[in-house]
Amino acid sequence: MKLPSQVTIVEVGPRDGFQNIKTFIPTDVKQEIIAAIVAAGVKNIEVTSFVHPKAVPQMADAADIAKAAVAVQDVHGLTLNALVPNLTGAKKAYECGLRDITCVISASEKHNLANINRTREQSLADLAAIAAELPGLTVRLGVATAFGCPFAGPVPKEDVLSLVEAGLKAGARAVTLCDTIGVGNPRLVSGICRDFLAAFPAVPVALHLHDTRGMGLANTLAGLEAGITTFETAIGGLGGCPFAPGAAGNTATEDTVNMLHAMGIATGIDLPRYLAAVAIVKEKIQPALTGHMGSACAYPGL
Amino acid sequence: MKLPSQVTIVEVGPRDGFQNIKTFIPTDVKQEIIAAIVAAGVKNIEVTSFVHPKAVPQMADAADIAKAAVAVQDVHGLTLNALVPNLTGAKKAYECGLRDITCVISASEKHNLANINRTREQSLADLAAIAAELPGLTVRLGVATAFGCPFAGPVPKEDVLSLVEAGLKAGARAVTLCDTIGVGNPRLVSGICRDFLAAFPAVPVALHLHDTRGMGLANTLAGLEAGITTFETAIGGLGGCPFAPGAAGNTATEDTVNMLHAMGIATGIDLPRYLAAVAIVKEKIQPALTGHMGSACAYPGL
Repeated sequence: MKLPSQVTIVEVGPRDGFQNIKTFIPTDVKQEIIAAIVAAGVKNIEVTSFVHPKAVPQMADAADIAKAAVAVQDVHGLTLNALVPNLTGAKKAYECGLRDITCVISASEKHNLANINRTREQSLADLAAIAAELPGLTVRLGVATAFGCPFAGPVPKEDVLSLVEAGLKAGARAVTLCDTIGVGNPRLVSGICRDFLAAFPAVPVALHLHDTRGMGLANTLAGLEAGITTFETAIGGLGGCPFAPGAAGNTATEDTVNMLHAMGIATGIDLPRYLAAVAIVKEKIQPALTGHMGSACAYPGL
Repeated sequence: MKLPSQVTIVEVGPRDGFQNIKTFIPTDVKQEIIAAIVAAGVKNIEVTSFVHPKAVPQMADAADIAKAAVAVQDVHGLTLNALVPNLTGAKKAYECGLRDITCVISASEKHNLANINRTREQSLADLAAIAAELPGLTVRLGVATAFGCPFAGPVPKEDVLSLVEAGLKAGARAVTLCDTIGVGNPRLVSGICRDFLAAFPAVPVALHLHDTRGMGLANTLAGLEAGITTFETAIGGLGGCPFAPGAAGNTATEDTVNMLHAMGIATGIDLPRYLAAVAIVKEKIQPALTGHMGSACAYPGL
């Protein structure tokens, strides 16, 4: 089994996780959780999303969250990131001191239209405008529905790769392949990741997997074996499928870290301290989490 | 990704799943669920356990369940199996018409002592007695704690392989490697499966995985890639870790079948019909199941 010796975990709970919680999470609770995540040794965090507060009220405190994180980034050696839907959001992120942002475009035209009412072409133009106007920002392209679309079903691999190519031309300098609704399977994930790495060997790439059908860690393994070394995961398995409330969300950070460590792969994260952060999420936000490690029985030596 | 074209699923929900349910499940409900599982095309079922009813009251109707299943095995082309703890149980299974039984012995001496108060040596003698007295029975050795023990922690690979060797000498003709508490990881599962297949290429072998830490399907994938083509799984993800009530149990049959089908691997099982059986379990036994497919959002074409 050919596996890397080290993996980078990008915590997306504060963005992808929190934005799926209906009740507004007080800003200080968000900050307490981010602080606990940082205390566990996580170095890469997607802290918030600069969407319009009317669209996602949960993210109304984006600027406060971003500024507070930026204020401590040097002391903790953090790489911070935020999701932005357009140039306005990108400008706000930049003004808060962020230098890394993610623009999400769907590989499936149907999903892009349903999700943000724009064609992929229009979204690519938005990305190009951000890259051109804010050269100090590193733009990451998040390819939504890279492994399947809730409306169109299977997404042709060619659509994923051509979107990546167009995104890089538009100015993106990194890519995340997202299994938005958790329908990817290991064979598919392996195939697309191998093709990506062959086509774009110099482009930093991450996998963003959901555990909706229990395949989160199996797809993580497939990605690892294909050569992927960066994974976006969410605390407690927060997040999810807006089309099936209650269905499992993102692959849980704690489950991913546990599997990686068990296989001898370093992440730099202290799992017991991370589980303390999970306990805060459980206590203050969501009593029932889909991540497994928060309730798994003890095991000697782990 | 090197994967088989076909996999055999052995449904162990009626044994490993039901035995972890505290309240007695009426015999007719058990039979209704087994019938629904059979109707979905499952051909291999571990139907019950011939343990003493004082030890596991849930299995007090073992003879009724076994006889009813045996009565329909030919019409449905079933291969039926039961767990037996000793010669007395094996005789009962044989009298009910079963011809396949499983004897469980732990690779970890500590666990074997804690679990059934016998040394591995004594358990092997029990297995030998069954094989000698009932040559009409095919005895399968279930190797418990093959990937880790709740008391001893990591289990040396040599202990697993030497137990298998001793079990085969004692008369076992098939083996199941069991991750009793769900602590196996893909690298470990891959390694032990590869070593097993190299050492015992002619011995039928199955993997029995738990999803306690979310690695059920990742370990399934590792087993598949190592060359394993038979998996024991439980409806709804029933079963579990007696040391952590509520923790996830067996890897769910529906999740396993979904992943296999998504990867183009045939199982002979009709997933929508199987999900109807899951719905019965949900309605009549356990409202909250750990399997994912019973609550996953719809996906076009699946």
